[in-house]
Amino acid sequence: MSISIPKGTRDFSPEEMTKRNYIFDTVKDVFKLYGYQPIETPAMENLSTLMGKYGEEGDKLLFKILNSGNFLQNVPAELLSGDKILPLTNRISEKGLRYDLTVPFARYVVQHRNDIIFPFKRYQIQPVWRADRPQKGRYREFFQCDADIIGSTSLLNEAELLQIIDRVFEKLGIDVTVKLNNRKILGGIAEIMGQSDRLTDITVAIDKIEKTGLDAVKEELRSKNITGEQIKILEPILSLSGTNEEKLNRMEEVLSCSETGLHGIAEIRKIFNYAEQLNISATVELDLSLARGLNYYTGAIIEVKARDVDMGSICGGGRYDNLTGIFGLKNVSGAGISFGADRIYDVLSAKNLFPQNSLETTRVLFVNMGEKEEIYCLQALQAIRNEGISAEIYPEAVKLKKQLEYADRRNIPFVVIAGEEEMASGKFLLKKMYDKSQKELPLRQLLDELY
Amino acid sequence: MSISIPKGTRDFSPEEMTKRNYIFDTVKDVFKLYGYQPIETPAMENLSTLMGKYGEEGDKLLFKILNSGNFLQNVPAELLSGDKILPLTNRISEKGLRYDLTVPFARYVVQHRNDIIFPFKRYQIQPVWRADRPQKGRYREFFQCDADIIGSTSLLNEAELLQIIDRVFEKLGIDVTVKLNNRKILGGIAEIMGQSDRLTDITVAIDKIEKTGLDAVKEELRSKNITGEQIKILEPILSLSGTNEEKLNRMEEVLSCSETGLHGIAEIRKIFNYAEQLNISATVELDLSLARGLNYYTGAIIEVKARDVDMGSICGGGRYDNLTGIFGLKNVSGAGISFGADRIYDVLSAKNLFPQNSLETTRVLFVNMGEKEEIYCLQALQAIRNEGISAEIYPEAVKLKKQLEYADRRNIPFVVIAGEEEMASGKFLLKKMYDKSQKELPLRQLLDELY
Repeated sequence: MSISIPKGTRDFSPEEMTKRNYIFDTVKDVFKLYGYQPIETPAMENLSTLMGKYGEEGDKLLFKILNSGNFLQNVPAELLSGDKILPLTNRISEKGLRYDLTVPFARYVVQHRNDIIFPFKRYQIQPVWRADRPQKGRYREFFQCDADIIGSTSLLNEAELLQIIDRVFEKLGIDVTVKLNNRKILGGIAEIMGQSDRLTDITVAIDKIEKTGLDAVKEELRSKNITGEQIKILEPILSLSGTNEEKLNRMEEVLSCSETGLHGIAEIRKIFNYAEQLNISATVELDLSLARGLNYYTGAIIEVKARDVDMGSICGGGRYDNLTGIFGLKNVSGAGISFGADRIYDVLSAKNLFPQNSLETTRVLFVNMGEKEEIYCLQALQAIRNEGISAEIYPEAVKLKKQLEYADRRNIPFVVIAGEEEMASGKFLLKKMYDKSQKELPLRQLLDELY
Repeated sequence: MSISIPKGTRDFSPEEMTKRNYIFDTVKDVFKLYGYQPIETPAMENLSTLMGKYGEEGDKLLFKILNSGNFLQNVPAELLSGDKILPLTNRISEKGLRYDLTVPFARYVVQHRNDIIFPFKRYQIQPVWRADRPQKGRYREFFQCDADIIGSTSLLNEAELLQIIDRVFEKLGIDVTVKLNNRKILGGIAEIMGQSDRLTDITVAIDKIEKTGLDAVKEELRSKNITGEQIKILEPILSLSGTNEEKLNRMEEVLSCSETGLHGIAEIRKIFNYAEQLNISATVELDLSLARGLNYYTGAIIEVKARDVDMGSICGGGRYDNLTGIFGLKNVSGAGISFGADRIYDVLSAKNLFPQNSLETTRVLFVNMGEKEEIYCLQALQAIRNEGISAEIYPEAVKLKKQLEYADRRNIPFVVIAGEEEMASGKFLLKKMYDKSQKELPLRQLLDELY
């Protein structure tokens, strides 16, 4: 019999759980520090909630749940021909696994809008599922850690998100660069090129500048029927250099005819200004090629990369003015970020940044010497656990060597042995596994040694 | 547009999250105190892992995931006639959502047996999914909190599970009765009736004695072709009364010819003996009608009910000698328990036992008076958060009344106001929301007040 789990999914061992919890707890503590509150949503959402929210490709990557019972009932025969997979899917499946935490959050806000106190700051740490092709570092089940504030247009929110990013990665010891852009600047660029409706093509091309270079980007734009004239307007933007302030000054000139573009520059200036006043320690830099999640971001766009590790983005987010609009609630602006727990895990592993000895293990193991000794030990165990110290007794009176081996492999630092002699004197033999020292102690002193 | 979630699933608000986390944290802390370590398994398992493990009814209640892409490819046309749902399902779906934590745990143990240190004590707190008919208190997505020890036959493990149960419910303040039975005693009863192969029929009938009474149970047994003679043997068992010890003595006589039965009695005696020596404070009572999970329990059977609340079982478990056998790993005995978080939640709600003021909320809100004041406040906020105190500033300079209302509705106990006057004197006006008192303080003293 072959025993396995679906490809792209993972089991987490106690050791991995400890490391993952270290990340989750760090992120959660910072979210709370800034007043964000936890919510959770179901793993399954109605497909009507999910479909059409992630583009055509996203719809295909949704895990869909087969209806219970006779799912073919009332399905017209012509849908079963094998070339009508999409309409057939809609008939035999009405639920899907969540693809991210953003759309369920938007659905939550609309559904519970009468109970929510706005501005609403929520965090959510849950797994999401995507039927992506599994590959190194990309899973079909992975965790997202999201914080969003909804119901406020203030740029202070963006500044706060930068503070949260800064504090999380400072705590984790990861040196990061925060890249910042603004959708309105991108909009302004398209506008002055006379190509407002080609924003996606233009940003996709700009996005490749680092990888492929200026000439390749120009070539791509030409292939998309952007004229030489228009590309000329774009060129100074592509080869922008200098400090953030220098870049912004240059862009202000370039975009002087675009109200939207100037608005974007004013916004990003204000955010940089906050970052400076708040002594954000991470490097925050303007990156006009940043266009992630263009579909729903309307203002700030944020992306975080670890320095000196080739890992892609480990956190991202931005401002969206119309997230709940897809569910019929207009004019509610929000901003949020999402930490990628799996990539952060990989960065911490690669740079050996997990805290030492953080494995949540038992503090003391009592050796099992037999029935009589058991009761003597069990009473001591109660007292130790009453102090909040995790303790166990080996469940069977097997050879001492085997029991010590168990303590060793489990990284349990203390072992207690109590045989007839100790019972007679009311004491316990404490053995420290890390230096092999041992001494006989009464219970009270034993407790003191275990803290 | 109708906005909803699939029936039988739930959203959890910040308030509900706080209450649920109180339960999870209590259970988790106790598990750790006894040396249990966390693992997690994927939400999706291969259907080959899940099917056939929960009986025919269980197979139907599994949520099945539709294969990606063209799932009808290679499906023979004759399976599409509408009356071959089961074989068709097997062709178009190869993954399902986990139905409990026990089967995935067995799969985990077998798959990772070379890395696991036995005896292996693991806990696991994750949601499970069942396509049950939703009704009051029964959900299609709900959380289980399981602790199991695998690789040890010692009855000390059962005693430890009783200790865990006792400590969890003591911490939660829920008064419980722990019911105890042993599969071997049930086996012995069937044996002396000469009906060893009818164990299920007999226990199903015994199980109804409290609800339907002795006569109805006899009638049911007769309808299943158990003779009057055989029912006579069963009668003293059905009307057993007295203390645990009296009941066990009586059963010892009745089962004197059954080696299995006597073995069961010896086991349960030993567990009662441990419970007494360990001063378990919950009532532990023998209940021969207890037969839950008969399919895989082989020794102790445990069930916990809250006293004075009509809620059904809030925790259950037992000993299984062959759980991993279904995945080809024989002779590995284990014992475990599972806490039902949702029912425990309902008991705590019904008896008003949740801790007061446990909502994880922000400790202090800074009122936003405008741009100049913002920077002054943001620096104080940094200092406050550096002390680990959760703090926020209202993101917009709206009317004071609205900001105070926000603090009030969010149950934020402290509000800080800093206008021109306070800035000039380097102070902050601290307002205590619960007694409406207020005073002006420098930052250092403000911090002291917030702890």
